Amino acid sequence: MIRNYARVLAEIEQELDFEQRLGQPADYIPELRKVNPDHFGLHLCCLNGDAFCLGEDKTHFSIQSISKVFSLSMAMRICGDDVWKRVGVEPSGNAFNSLIQLEREDGIPRNPLINAGALVIADMLVTHFSDPRQALLDFVRQLTQDDSITFDEDVAVSEQSVGYRNFATAHMLKSFGNMENEIMEVLDFYFHQCALSMNCAQLSKAFLVFANEGKIPDSHTQVLSPLQCKRINALMMTCGFYDEAGEFSFLVGLPGKSGVGGGIVAIHPGEYSVAVWSPRLNEKGNSVLGMKSLELLTTKTAYSIF
Amino acid sequence: MIRNYARVLAEIEQELDFEQRLGQPADYIPELRKVNPDHFGLHLCCLNGDAFCLGEDKTHFSIQSISKVFSLSMAMRICGDDVWKRVGVEPSGNAFNSLIQLEREDGIPRNPLINAGALVIADMLVTHFSDPRQALLDFVRQLTQDDSITFDEDVAVSEQSVGYRNFATAHMLKSFGNMENEIMEVLDFYFHQCALSMNCAQLSKAFLVFANEGKIPDSHTQVLSPLQCKRINALMMTCGFYDEAGEFSFLVGLPGKSGVGGGIVAIHPGEYSVAVWSPRLNEKGNSVLGMKSLELLTTKTAYSIF
Amino acid sequence: MIRNYARVLAEIEQELDFEQRLGQPADYIPELRKVNPDHFGLHLCCLNGDAFCLGEDKTHFSIQSISKVFSLSMAMRICGDDVWKRVGVEPSGNAFNSLIQLEREDGIPRNPLINAGALVIADMLVTHFSDPRQALLDFVRQLTQDDSITFDEDVAVSEQSVGYRNFATAHMLKSFGNMENEIMEVLDFYFHQCALSMNCAQLSKAFLVFANEGKIPDSHTQVLSPLQCKRINALMMTCGFYDEAGEFSFLVGLPGKSGVGGGIVAIHPGEYSVAVWSPRLNEKGNSVLGMKSLELLTTKTAYSIF
Amino acid sequence: MIRNYARVLAEIEQELDFEQRLGQPADYIPELRKVNPDHFGLHLCCLNGDAFCLGEDKTHFSIQSISKVFSLSMAMRICGDDVWKRVGVEPSGNAFNSLIQLEREDGIPRNPLINAGALVIADMLVTHFSDPRQALLDFVRQLTQDDSITFDEDVAVSEQSVGYRNFATAHMLKSFGNMENEIMEVLDFYFHQCALSMNCAQLSKAFLVFANEGKIPDSHTQVLSPLQCKRINALMMTCGFYDEAGEFSFLVGLPGKSGVGGGIVAIHPGEYSVAVWSPRLNEKGNSVLGMKSLELLTTKTAYSIF
Repeated sequence: MIRNYARVLAEIEQELDFEQRLGQPADYIPELRKVNPDHFGLHLCCLNGDAFCLGEDKTHFSIQSISKVFSLSMAMRICGDDVWKRVGVEPSGNAFNSLIQLEREDGIPRNPLINAGALVIADMLVTHFSDPRQALLDFVRQLTQDDSITFDEDVAVSEQSVGYRNFATAHMLKSFGNMENEIMEVLDFYFHQCALSMNCAQLSKAFLVFANEGKIPDSHTQVLSPLQCKRINALMMTCGFYDEAGEFSFLVGLPGKSGVGGGIVAIHPGEYSVAVWSPRLNEKGNSVLGMKSLELLTTKTAYSIF
Repeated sequence: MIRNYARVLAEIEQELDFEQRLGQPADYIPELRKVNPDHFGLHLCCLNGDAFCLGEDKTHFSIQSISKVFSLSMAMRICGDDVWKRVGVEPSGNAFNSLIQLEREDGIPRNPLINAGALVIADMLVTHFSDPRQALLDFVRQLTQDDSITFDEDVAVSEQSVGYRNFATAHMLKSFGNMENEIMEVLDFYFHQCALSMNCAQLSKAFLVFANEGKIPDSHTQVLSPLQCKRINALMMTCGFYDEAGEFSFLVGLPGKSGVGGGIVAIHPGEYSVAVWSPRLNEKGNSVLGMKSLELLTTKTAYSIF
Repeated sequence: MIRNYARVLAEIEQELDFEQRLGQPADYIPELRKVNPDHFGLHLCCLNGDAFCLGEDKTHFSIQSISKVFSLSMAMRICGDDVWKRVGVEPSGNAFNSLIQLEREDGIPRNPLINAGALVIADMLVTHFSDPRQALLDFVRQLTQDDSITFDEDVAVSEQSVGYRNFATAHMLKSFGNMENEIMEVLDFYFHQCALSMNCAQLSKAFLVFANEGKIPDSHTQVLSPLQCKRINALMMTCGFYDEAGEFSFLVGLPGKSGVGGGIVAIHPGEYSVAVWSPRLNEKGNSVLGMKSLELLTTKTAYSIF
Repeated sequence: MIRNYARVLAEIEQELDFEQRLGQPADYIPELRKVNPDHFGLHLCCLNGDAFCLGEDKTHFSIQSISKVFSLSMAMRICGDDVWKRVGVEPSGNAFNSLIQLEREDGIPRNPLINAGALVIADMLVTHFSDPRQALLDFVRQLTQDDSITFDEDVAVSEQSVGYRNFATAHMLKSFGNMENEIMEVLDFYFHQCALSMNCAQLSKAFLVFANEGKIPDSHTQVLSPLQCKRINALMMTCGFYDEAGEFSFLVGLPGKSGVGGGIVAIHPGEYSVAVWSPRLNEKGNSVLGMKSLELLTTKTAYSIF
């Protein structure tokens, strides 16, 4: 079936209520408060090379937790199934920054897409790479074939200045023996990872690999095995939206990952990757217009993985 | 792509280690203890009409929690989106029979596929139907076009005799005002629902409707809208395996539902429905050989929804 | 030192702000809603035989959870230290009717003064006595030497009609094997126990035994050993006020027990027993004026156990 | 009544089973592991000036959490009731180093005698004193009239090297805005506080002030008001023994405080103060022989606060 994404996107643009200004941007990171909350951009890349966009799809923003999918991919390439000795694969049913389960479950985070899990993944990368920040940039640049992608240092510094909960989490992991490196070193990497600055066009291109069984479409480089790719998608499906994973699966029906910068990226295996950005968040920390756009996308195309 | 399911099933049969006898059958329901733990059956129905089987695919067993998908479907037909006023759509991150979240979250169960949620769904059906048991039989018989399907009364009685946790859950729901009918009436229906006796062939046929956008393939009857069907699949994906939903998604990559009778059914939208049965359970309450069979199925066909 | 309780009580009466009408009476038991919320009574019995009173110290009310101290005393007489095989001695840190710890801690209630623990104690009495209700009446009548004390049947029926949370708790206990008798039988006893109707004069007299090392002052009957008496006092101290035990200990500094009917009774070992009643409760379920009266009593006499 | 403490102590020494070597010393602080686990000392000071001892009552050990009573006393002198804006007075029902309640209860620790609460108290002292360590030494030396008391720097350094859980707690407090000062500064003070090195004779003398309505017996200095003293005793009663406060209250019936160095100190208001030390701990972190000694003391004297 030929799907007319151009028409669907035009309809989405018409139906979204930009004036209502529902939700608030994240305000706990000082630097993120400076962002105009009314940005909106969307970019959809098909595996066949077609691309479609709406609004400010070339404006950069802080991808925040979306970066957890990149770091997880790198860790799976390095450590294989050993990753799962230190972190689980189950939805948490709790807030993304909660320490409650971590304490109850002896320092093994529920999954790699909550903060505690991402810190364990960061620890693996810090162990393996002499320059983990550069290694991350290299990986994202390889996926996007765009060497301009870099960190927003102001955001990284800003996160560190208020990242008490992440410091608490890292120390808790250390107390359970699930952090090998110096906490400051791991957190420095983690805050930079969150401060990756990308636009919707770059993000959707980067995530095409997950729609393509682990192979970068342009370069035909297999960066993940099909099985690894399937598992990352499964994790995005069940754990990608904090304690709103069920809602996203229910409304949208695609694997995806959100960030508190207002970005969401989702993929339809074998079909496309789509990134959307709007900084106003619902109370669960997910972009209001981002969620709505993707719900309209899969409803209007009558096409999700389910 | 033509997939050779016959050959894949043959390979699965060879690779499964039937001798290892890992896991134990559920022993808390006296009647279920009488079942030989070493049964094994599998049946796969394609939307194109092809069917494939392994072992005892015509032997009946107690479908237990798999029935929650049938009752949820019925409730969505009756109540539409009002269902979601009384039950959520998020994975629980807890055991299927836990009351902890229910108490913390004011009597709104996390999702309709844990016990508390299924009791709320049962309450809706008891409110709507003068004879809810018969209505359930009618629905399952319509899906399978098989009028022989019925309840195992011995199992229903046996469940009731030891169902203290379910009684506790129902009273907790009542204390929060989330149960309209008499507790005994709702539980009687619920215990019968769990005691539906079906075989793998019947189950896989019944679940084809979820692989077919809500339409029964044989009769072309649309029993659920495509959107409703998508949402049920999404719920099976994120919540269908108790606190092992992430693991199933990760290993198998299909929406599905398990029961403590040892049955698991999973669907590949647009492709097939598959039911497997083996009573030995892992510690999370899911069939050991059932999980393994389905993992081999999607790995060998290199084909899941991800 | 001679303490002038008469003058202290007169000062308390002057300082209490009866007009402010802070707090609400318990409203979840229909029958309790009929009580005028502005009653107030206080009665203090010294071990030397002196007695002092304020307000309506002869008006009967439903003693509710205060009865848990009577049933615990009876169980310790019957079962000795075997009581502690089925219930703990630690403060719960949770609401009095919560099931969360009970589920986490395998059906062993934290202490005998929360609902779950009192249900286990009730189960012990139902096992031991052919007519446990009569046995309870006999015990309370023995302590008070007042044969007029009885149950308020309307309250007992009213509690049963809405006692869903207690039914849930009893079924949870049963599911863990920590309830021997039929749930209905245990709950019937429990609802009657809570519906004991007493006045402040009777209550303070009944509790004198706990200020007197287990011996009834008038009859010189030793109903509890000094060690048992000390332990009951210790439990009242750490667990007698739901999740406000610390606050009561902090403000008042005496062992005591409260009930949602608005009664509080406290004892000063070797000195006196005091009962106070005022139906308006704070958000923790303890009588506002009751707490205040006792705080003033120990502050003005500069005399608590600490 | 004249109580023959000398004879009672002699009996205790005979009845304690020193050979059984039950329990293990704390092993998570490297420096504490060096202590011979089979030390035992006890010292009892009466308000009338009498003193009695057993074993090594002059050997110094690390008082650890017992120090929380000193720092709390200092904070109450400085901040009065403002202390209770930042920390509660309820038993936690959880382990002493748990972060679960702290997260659930928005960064307000349950009481000042668990780690989180003691860190808030430490923060108050760091705010108020230019040299909080010296201020603590001054206070303890004033109580004991012994200027030789000081910190064991090796223990302080050792605690800091492994104090990940305390770092996690401090960061969690900071994330909720309940820590004013730099985390390192507060923790440095806290680790020193825990590393106070005292013997049983000094400890029991220091705690006499709590048995004497806030006045130091020797110097007649009123360091706490009688009301403040009563409240500290109430807190020791309900919260002084981690999640074993109920057990201690039940078995011993005195307010007290334990430390993982194996020390326990308890007071009988108006009578005496007693300190005991034995490094082998039960699984709750309280000294096995320490608990037993004090249980025998109140049982044999038939004299507790209850």
